[in-house]
Amino acid sequence: MYRKQLLDCHIRIKPYIHRTPVLTSRLLNDLSGAELYFKCENFQKMGAYKMRGATNAILLLSDKERANGVVTHSSGNFAQALSLAAQSLNVKAYIVMPSNAPEIKKVAVSQYGGNIIECAPTIESRSSAANKIASKKGATFIHPSNDMNVIIGQGTAAMELLEDFPGLDYIFAPIGGGGLIAGTALAADYFGDICKVVGGEPYEADDAYRSFHSGEIESNRTTNTIADGLKTVLGDKTFPIIKKHVHDIIRVTEDEIVIAMRLIWERLKIIVEPSSAVALAALIREKDNYHGQRIGIIITGGNVDLNNLPF
Amino acid sequence: MYRKQLLDCHIRIKPYIHRTPVLTSRLLNDLSGAELYFKCENFQKMGAYKMRGATNAILLLSDKERANGVVTHSSGNFAQALSLAAQSLNVKAYIVMPSNAPEIKKVAVSQYGGNIIECAPTIESRSSAANKIASKKGATFIHPSNDMNVIIGQGTAAMELLEDFPGLDYIFAPIGGGGLIAGTALAADYFGDICKVVGGEPYEADDAYRSFHSGEIESNRTTNTIADGLKTVLGDKTFPIIKKHVHDIIRVTEDEIVIAMRLIWERLKIIVEPSSAVALAALIREKDNYHGQRIGIIITGGNVDLNNLPF
Repeated sequence: MYRKQLLDCHIRIKPYIHRTPVLTSRLLNDLSGAELYFKCENFQKMGAYKMRGATNAILLLSDKERANGVVTHSSGNFAQALSLAAQSLNVKAYIVMPSNAPEIKKVAVSQYGGNIIECAPTIESRSSAANKIASKKGATFIHPSNDMNVIIGQGTAAMELLEDFPGLDYIFAPIGGGGLIAGTALAADYFGDICKVVGGEPYEADDAYRSFHSGEIESNRTTNTIADGLKTVLGDKTFPIIKKHVHDIIRVTEDEIVIAMRLIWERLKIIVEPSSAVALAALIREKDNYHGQRIGIIITGGNVDLNNLPF
Repeated sequence: MYRKQLLDCHIRIKPYIHRTPVLTSRLLNDLSGAELYFKCENFQKMGAYKMRGATNAILLLSDKERANGVVTHSSGNFAQALSLAAQSLNVKAYIVMPSNAPEIKKVAVSQYGGNIIECAPTIESRSSAANKIASKKGATFIHPSNDMNVIIGQGTAAMELLEDFPGLDYIFAPIGGGGLIAGTALAADYFGDICKVVGGEPYEADDAYRSFHSGEIESNRTTNTIADGLKTVLGDKTFPIIKKHVHDIIRVTEDEIVIAMRLIWERLKIIVEPSSAVALAALIREKDNYHGQRIGIIITGGNVDLNNLPF
């Protein structure tokens, strides 16, 4: 079932996304003891893999739904992705953002044509603001991660990676809301020969690690991490897929994230946001268990505020 | 003559270099009013186009010359390039560096196997130190830019770009010692349909601009520029080629360099050093003269100290 969904999705979204390149680095191979293949979604449209899921979700709406627009709550890459995907498809996008969201993120959403609705910076008020728009405008709510159409869309990055390198032993990806890792795990199951999926997560926002081990959805105890894309929690769509299809979840410290981020900047010469570095940090932390393996690493995005770098 | 030299060189160095990708950006096209093709030599081995010329120069040595090693003076990318090229070919490389060169650059040269010889930070003492090594060890001196084998090697970047995009109207490249722009101009002459070459240069190190207009090699009045790869001056090999084959030279301010560098980081999501941004800065400065043109831009390198960024 998911196999056909992934294949159909890839054909559906292809005209609206970039097929992103895969980079390698002899030095990072030496350092990790493995053979690494970086899938560079920082080169994706609007700078992150979220473009895939957002585009798929909008393309699957009926004409009537499209006419009424879409709504989401996000202060991160999904806000920009839904705005740009909607703009490309002539659909109105309402983006609920907390009033304290950084100005730079509001500007980016506006540039992609998104209509910002400010709300108080609490989970309750962002949900109620989104619901209000949904009922007032008839707009369809699209969750940034906990939505099967979004999950399938995000899985196409791993599909492409496995098309280019079918023999990968593992794919590493970071875990925030779980949309990327769930989609990646489905893609690895259906399109990898022997490919297992491993998640990376900050200790400071380790809901997925604890959920994975307790068997129930846990909430974050802190979200004090530089990996700002990973502060969100799993949902009832993402968690069952993760529980069933993900091989392992590795937690990393804030220092490990910054070191991995710097390695990627210096060695691959590409701009990646802190969340992107969590997957490499996880591999480096447990590199002894992955010696000599062929490992895909999903670089999630490159949207970073150059005025506010950790080095 | 140069046509065959360029073709032979490309075949000769191919096993030792990367064929670097070409990136585009809708937003940078909109901003410049032109169609831009960025040749990403920041992804080249050791992070800069200098790898091409250094490799070509060593490969053209006789067995006897190779046995005695090579020597150059450079505190920049050519030092690393000659070290790595020599290491790959089992040749000894002696690198004369001023005693005040940044530690980070010395470490990089050592990592690539170069043997550092420190000298006083003056042009005279670096020349005499290089001469001493040449006579004592029998090592062949290879100039970072003013050497025909180096110039031809650097030209292969533009050759590849024109192979990928034969219809380019212009190629923009920065000018330091002039090795890149000279090689680029030769490649454009022989492999472009109608391609003209334009140089970018900082006002703060504008020897090439003034030489181009006076008809004689001028020296720099200042070298107070963030584009640290462009502080060097033209030589008797590079200048005649530039005079004959380069279409124009555009000077840019320090602010324009930083703005262009930031645009490349934020929009292309790649790490480039300040010198790399000078070509885009030059185009943006005179964009009204290049409206609607198809323009290649050579991104020269990505070796930048992340602890010392201009933003």
